[in-house]
Amino acid sequence: MEEGAPQSHPYVPRDLKLPGYVPVVLSQSTIVGVYGLSSLLVVSVIWIISGRFPKTSKIDRLLMCWWAFTGLTHAILEGYFVFSPEFYKDKTACYLAEVWKEYSKGDSRYAARDAGVIAVEGITAVLEGPASLLALYTIATKKSYSYILQLTISLGQLYGTAVYFITSYLDGDNFAASAYYYYAYYVFANAFWVVIPSLIVIRCWKKICAAFQVQGQQKTKVR
Amino acid sequence: MEEGAPQSHPYVPRDLKLPGYVPVVLSQSTIVGVYGLSSLLVVSVIWIISGRFPKTSKIDRLLMCWWAFTGLTHAILEGYFVFSPEFYKDKTACYLAEVWKEYSKGDSRYAARDAGVIAVEGITAVLEGPASLLALYTIATKKSYSYILQLTISLGQLYGTAVYFITSYLDGDNFAASAYYYYAYYVFANAFWVVIPSLIVIRCWKKICAAFQVQGQQKTKVR
Repeated sequence: MEEGAPQSHPYVPRDLKLPGYVPVVLSQSTIVGVYGLSSLLVVSVIWIISGRFPKTSKIDRLLMCWWAFTGLTHAILEGYFVFSPEFYKDKTACYLAEVWKEYSKGDSRYAARDAGVIAVEGITAVLEGPASLLALYTIATKKSYSYILQLTISLGQLYGTAVYFITSYLDGDNFAASAYYYYAYYVFANAFWVVIPSLIVIRCWKKICAAFQVQGQQKTKVR
Repeated sequence: MEEGAPQSHPYVPRDLKLPGYVPVVLSQSTIVGVYGLSSLLVVSVIWIISGRFPKTSKIDRLLMCWWAFTGLTHAILEGYFVFSPEFYKDKTACYLAEVWKEYSKGDSRYAARDAGVIAVEGITAVLEGPASLLALYTIATKKSYSYILQLTISLGQLYGTAVYFITSYLDGDNFAASAYYYYAYYVFANAFWVVIPSLIVIRCWKKICAAFQVQGQQKTKVR
């Protein structure tokens, strides 16, 4: 131990060096609860407001809720992570630092600043976060580019999640403090960004194909 | 040097361990020339054949050439790399191994099996390679999903190239044997997969938007 004081972080691999690490202060239920409740608040507000929009289907309202939730998660939570390389040294019990200290129990590459993780999180936070909020706006205002935008962001989320899981696998898949954290944080939490973007890609693909078929029929009629 | 014989590879960083490394046999001009000429052959054949297709614009013919070139590059060159972890030990002067021994002078992460590089190359070779050849087919047969497919692959290429450059930057950007190899291989060769996919994304985006506007107009007429 070069730094004098012994390493006392809870992460795996155990030989990961995190000089100056300050332990998590908030409980797991507080950290997860605040995220869950604030997400529920955002989703509820969007659901209620979107209900007053004329001719907006329930699927579009659900999608608006998703884009608000995922956009704010990308921009705030992941944005904080990308630009806070020393979050694990935070002594102020800042909520966002606590989130990543806790999540690192499921994937210590976050605390270790793995280049693959930062690259994916950087693209997610900087490009996909704002783009998700734009997607919400394009559904509300029925823009013609709404489906392509939703397809583009969802493909980006899927690509990012693929890189995230593949790099972990290639590097030995040994970054979780226990099987519990592995399944709860690394597998379960990320599964949302596999399942939901996949469903959106399928839906947008069909909608875009349908638009081209209408265009094709019209061209035929004109002839 | 644990392995007995001294390390004698030409790559940077110099302390990279590649036990069993066998030097490149073919000259740079042979390696680049074979790739250039076989690409030119593929592009010429596609250009000539596509000229006989009814109502196929020059842009679509150029795109067919691109999808053939990039699809075969992904599937063959990058496919070989992904599934040949020990290419740097190859003693047979196998052309594909020579390509990656040579390219590693521009980015030694290939020889070092960096997880980020393999993740991106894996997605590129396994998914984008075959999908690019499918894109060629959809242009030739004027499928309604051609633009979405081209958009999807191009976005994947852009995302992959972004991860490729960002991870190198985060890990110190010190993987090229010299400034010449840095600019010729790492910057110039990869620039094709930034510029061309960007142009295709813009074109497909416009085409898809136009299709939705036609659909919108038709709905208005029906009312």
